[in-house]
Amino acid sequence: MTPQASTPAYRRLSVEERRSQLLDAALSLFAHRAPEEVSLDDVAEAAGVSRPLVYRYFPGGKQQLYEAALRSAADELRHCFDEPHEGPRLPRLSRALDRYLAFVDQHGAGFSALLQGGSVVETSRTTAIVDGVRRAAAEHILSHLGVAGPGPRLRMTVRMWITAVEAASLIWLDEDEQPPVDELRDWLVEQFVAGLEVTARRDAQTEELVRELAADL
Amino acid sequence: MTPQASTPAYRRLSVEERRSQLLDAALSLFAHRAPEEVSLDDVAEAAGVSRPLVYRYFPGGKQQLYEAALRSAADELRHCFDEPHEGPRLPRLSRALDRYLAFVDQHGAGFSALLQGGSVVETSRTTAIVDGVRRAAAEHILSHLGVAGPGPRLRMTVRMWITAVEAASLIWLDEDEQPPVDELRDWLVEQFVAGLEVTARRDAQTEELVRELAADL
Repeated sequence: MTPQASTPAYRRLSVEERRSQLLDAALSLFAHRAPEEVSLDDVAEAAGVSRPLVYRYFPGGKQQLYEAALRSAADELRHCFDEPHEGPRLPRLSRALDRYLAFVDQHGAGFSALLQGGSVVETSRTTAIVDGVRRAAAEHILSHLGVAGPGPRLRMTVRMWITAVEAASLIWLDEDEQPPVDELRDWLVEQFVAGLEVTARRDAQTEELVRELAADL
Repeated sequence: MTPQASTPAYRRLSVEERRSQLLDAALSLFAHRAPEEVSLDDVAEAAGVSRPLVYRYFPGGKQQLYEAALRSAADELRHCFDEPHEGPRLPRLSRALDRYLAFVDQHGAGFSALLQGGSVVETSRTTAIVDGVRRAAAEHILSHLGVAGPGPRLRMTVRMWITAVEAASLIWLDEDEQPPVDELRDWLVEQFVAGLEVTARRDAQTEELVRELAADL
């Protein structure tokens, strides 16, 4: 039985709807398998459409689909940081982390493959997408911290923490999501504050920020 | 003028010497350019030998040479942790960091390309090599800490710190090696201790370790 016959594939979707349907199908496959183990046939089957249709939307084939799926995941990740610039700052960070960890949980293996690279379709372009998310996260956090003109030491501290959060997420997935997500989130926030406190010993701007964060709560 | 004519290339070297000469040449090229921008011709020229000779040693071409250079760099990185298991523990970590940062300084762009991936010759095999160094670093640190049977929270803390150190090294290279290496090293050690202190609030094993480290100095 061909997938087309078994699913309501050819109902009329707008181009945008169809595209996003295919990306969702691809993302859910990448969530469980490494990108090199996913074929366009698999995507067609998961979306319940024909292979030529997948090619029509992604004429560049697997590489193009992978990049589009990556971009779509990157957009979703960026949305984790959509948070009003008001109220105490560390709870804002906690809420962003909750959304981020929900994303990690939802995309599991696909998230790991994405961050760890090592895929045959990995290129400098895909690396740039992942790196763009990291940079966006750093800018978001710095803007939420409300520091005007963050200096190199503060920036380095924030960027180190972001990398450490990624590493922790990968380990967390490896270890069957232990500790529980709430504990992981609180621990990550505490790691953030501790990192700032160390930097504060050498950097007046960070010292001022740490004082503000303590008063903020 | 061909490179062969200009250099004492064809003096007799043992197979091992020749191999290591070619790897050194490759590493120094990778140190200044991304792997995809280095050709076998470049390596032959840098080593002052003919291109066929490079092929004789690395019949798999560029991919094989890149992996061999990566392995050689990985071995060098592992040696950073060669440190007697005696004396106070944090100073041992400082000395390992000094060697690691000297490696980062020496290999510059090659080190960045290596860690950041995004190379066309990046494969799951090269990723595994880099990941192997990270794991070895974690095991070394845990063994130096002298904790019998380190639990998941302590392991996660150490692995997060290793990733954070990598991120800091890349930023440090980007920022013309600011702050000075001694300051960076001390700051990284302090970040390590601060990370352990946060984990100690939830983990008895890490709490005990933090107490020991404080008494150690």
